[in-house]
Amino acid sequence: MAHLGLRRFPPPLMVLLFLATAAGKEEYGGGSGGLRFRREGGTFKVLQVADMHFGDGRSTPCEDVLPAQQRGCSDLNTTAFLYRVLRAEDPDLVVFTGDNIYGADSSDAAKSMDAAIAPAIAMKLPWAAVLGNHDQEGTLSRESVMRHLVGMKNSLSGLNPEGIKIDGYGNYNLEVGGVEGTLLANKSVLNLYFLDSGDYSTVWWIPGYGWIKASQQAWFRQTSSDLQKRYTTEEPTQKEPAPGLVYFHIPVPEFGSFTASSFTGVKQEGISSPSINSGFFTTMLESGDVKAAFIGHDHINDFCGKLSGIQLCYDGGFGYHAYGKAGWSWRARVVSVQLEKAESGEWRGVKSIKTWKRLDDQHLTTIDSEVLWNRGSNEPQPI
Amino acid sequence: MAHLGLRRFPPPLMVLLFLATAAGKEEYGGGSGGLRFRREGGTFKVLQVADMHFGDGRSTPCEDVLPAQQRGCSDLNTTAFLYRVLRAEDPDLVVFTGDNIYGADSSDAAKSMDAAIAPAIAMKLPWAAVLGNHDQEGTLSRESVMRHLVGMKNSLSGLNPEGIKIDGYGNYNLEVGGVEGTLLANKSVLNLYFLDSGDYSTVWWIPGYGWIKASQQAWFRQTSSDLQKRYTTEEPTQKEPAPGLVYFHIPVPEFGSFTASSFTGVKQEGISSPSINSGFFTTMLESGDVKAAFIGHDHINDFCGKLSGIQLCYDGGFGYHAYGKAGWSWRARVVSVQLEKAESGEWRGVKSIKTWKRLDDQHLTTIDSEVLWNRGSNEPQPI
Repeated sequence: MAHLGLRRFPPPLMVLLFLATAAGKEEYGGGSGGLRFRREGGTFKVLQVADMHFGDGRSTPCEDVLPAQQRGCSDLNTTAFLYRVLRAEDPDLVVFTGDNIYGADSSDAAKSMDAAIAPAIAMKLPWAAVLGNHDQEGTLSRESVMRHLVGMKNSLSGLNPEGIKIDGYGNYNLEVGGVEGTLLANKSVLNLYFLDSGDYSTVWWIPGYGWIKASQQAWFRQTSSDLQKRYTTEEPTQKEPAPGLVYFHIPVPEFGSFTASSFTGVKQEGISSPSINSGFFTTMLESGDVKAAFIGHDHINDFCGKLSGIQLCYDGGFGYHAYGKAGWSWRARVVSVQLEKAESGEWRGVKSIKTWKRLDDQHLTTIDSEVLWNRGSNEPQPI
Repeated sequence: MAHLGLRRFPPPLMVLLFLATAAGKEEYGGGSGGLRFRREGGTFKVLQVADMHFGDGRSTPCEDVLPAQQRGCSDLNTTAFLYRVLRAEDPDLVVFTGDNIYGADSSDAAKSMDAAIAPAIAMKLPWAAVLGNHDQEGTLSRESVMRHLVGMKNSLSGLNPEGIKIDGYGNYNLEVGGVEGTLLANKSVLNLYFLDSGDYSTVWWIPGYGWIKASQQAWFRQTSSDLQKRYTTEEPTQKEPAPGLVYFHIPVPEFGSFTASSFTGVKQEGISSPSINSGFFTTMLESGDVKAAFIGHDHINDFCGKLSGIQLCYDGGFGYHAYGKAGWSWRARVVSVQLEKAESGEWRGVKSIKTWKRLDDQHLTTIDSEVLWNRGSNEPQPI
């Protein structure tokens, strides 16, 4: 499973394993959850699905579609879109960034979640999820929803790390190994972090949405630090840390620091952050390996803006049973990470990170393609 | 010593101890470090000393005094002021909030520190210290300076808590017990937190001063939470958490949120915060028990302003070998915490927290007296 913590083996075993592999035996299963880059093209592609707001399926109607689309429109349109975009993109990982179900309109939270995620499972894709602020509003508590997500087929979702006590449910990380048979096959060349950004504040003097707490940030910082240390000090040592991508649900306040001319995509509503700044942007910045953070929550914002070298990206709403903007297509974000090729022709570490969005229109139109990060070009930037 | 962690005894022993005490045997030594409120008056008084910038003593000249004061003026003027104010106030605890020595002008950091703190020790007062950004610039590293502070006579300073790994040197807490022989004699009715706010950023992409890291905040949050739980759930249970006061050196950015009409004291220079917000104000706010935070660092700011129910207070510079403003007296902040009296006449928990400043002028003038907090009046305030 994906949530075993930072390393699967104590160092001496790790070394033995590396030597065994170097001698031609492939015993290492790739990154946590078996994730690794493809030899074909040297890529790893993540499809982000935000705010499905799944309810009871066929009987749960669409919101904010054009009058002509309303008839017969339901959660099943969300399902159909998911199948279409998965077929079109063939991702290596699907990430559901919260409000996967809309608990209040679900008569059985587990069933709703099963139905919401079903296309990824049916297509045998590995997937991971974090909680939003609506997932627990049905028949299951926040902890139970997360446990359910972890136990589902092909799920790489994790509970919290063991041995420490941190806030929230479902704070974990996944490692993505280099291409099989190459020098970096046994290293995590791309790190994915998943955090529970909470639902609502539990202290009355800070009204509003939840936030990523100090305990989660301390875990994140330590995890990032450990991963960087392994990458740069264990053989084969690498000069620079592997890039990291962070997934959670509720925007940190820094998503509000852009003007229309400073981002790609659209901002059609306010940034619904918590009413305080808990410092997670600073913690990501301090870590140094984070190149982009991907969230949901505000359905009709879909921009990416760069702040101090970190791309802050909305997904845009995916689910038909969620508020949106009639006539503005539901959408998903793709992140495609590209490895560098050595002179020998062998794949090495990450060279660039690109993104684009797919719209649920007739042609699954691709929009807003852009490079989020290039090795050596803009990392990190002084604030 | 003061840094034994959150509780000195496992719960069953704690209960036994309480029962023993209730039966008339005094086995509990008061708060950590033996701190407790005085029966006489039901008060606990803290004198804060900020930015002594101590160097080599007599040979280290004063900065920013009037021309008429310059001759013969040295570190010894700082020492003289400390003796005077300690005699005048007779505090229960002295807190040195960093830049206790000015490392770069000290030929022996340990000697400088010994000389700087000497008046508190000579007067047999318990004291505690945190690091500023200049303490380590002499012959001792940051860690060594903190170890030295911990080992000094009457020091209640602590190293980091054991069993967890957190950033910085000297993150600890002290408990102040209720009046001996009363119902709350075995409880910490006032909690003091001390944090290392760092010196300078160690990541080039975040230039400027250091900040309180996620790991420190997680420890702080957990400590506060544990203390609140003990206070409200262990016999004799209390309805509301005991108030907390926080001491560190470098201002969090929220110190910059006041206008002249919204604080008591003066702001004569900018707020020299780190260039990012690491969320510690949020963590203090979230905790719910923190009533005030006291810092130094900016010598010619000495105001207290209230934000969301938390008083953010500068001390104002104390040390003559530090930048200041000629003619503007060096000063120290007093915090006097007052217990409530039960109908029986017995002292209970904290009722109010007052503050004032003492100037190093002919009469040790008291200025800017104000109530920082009253039980029941303004705690916490919605943001």
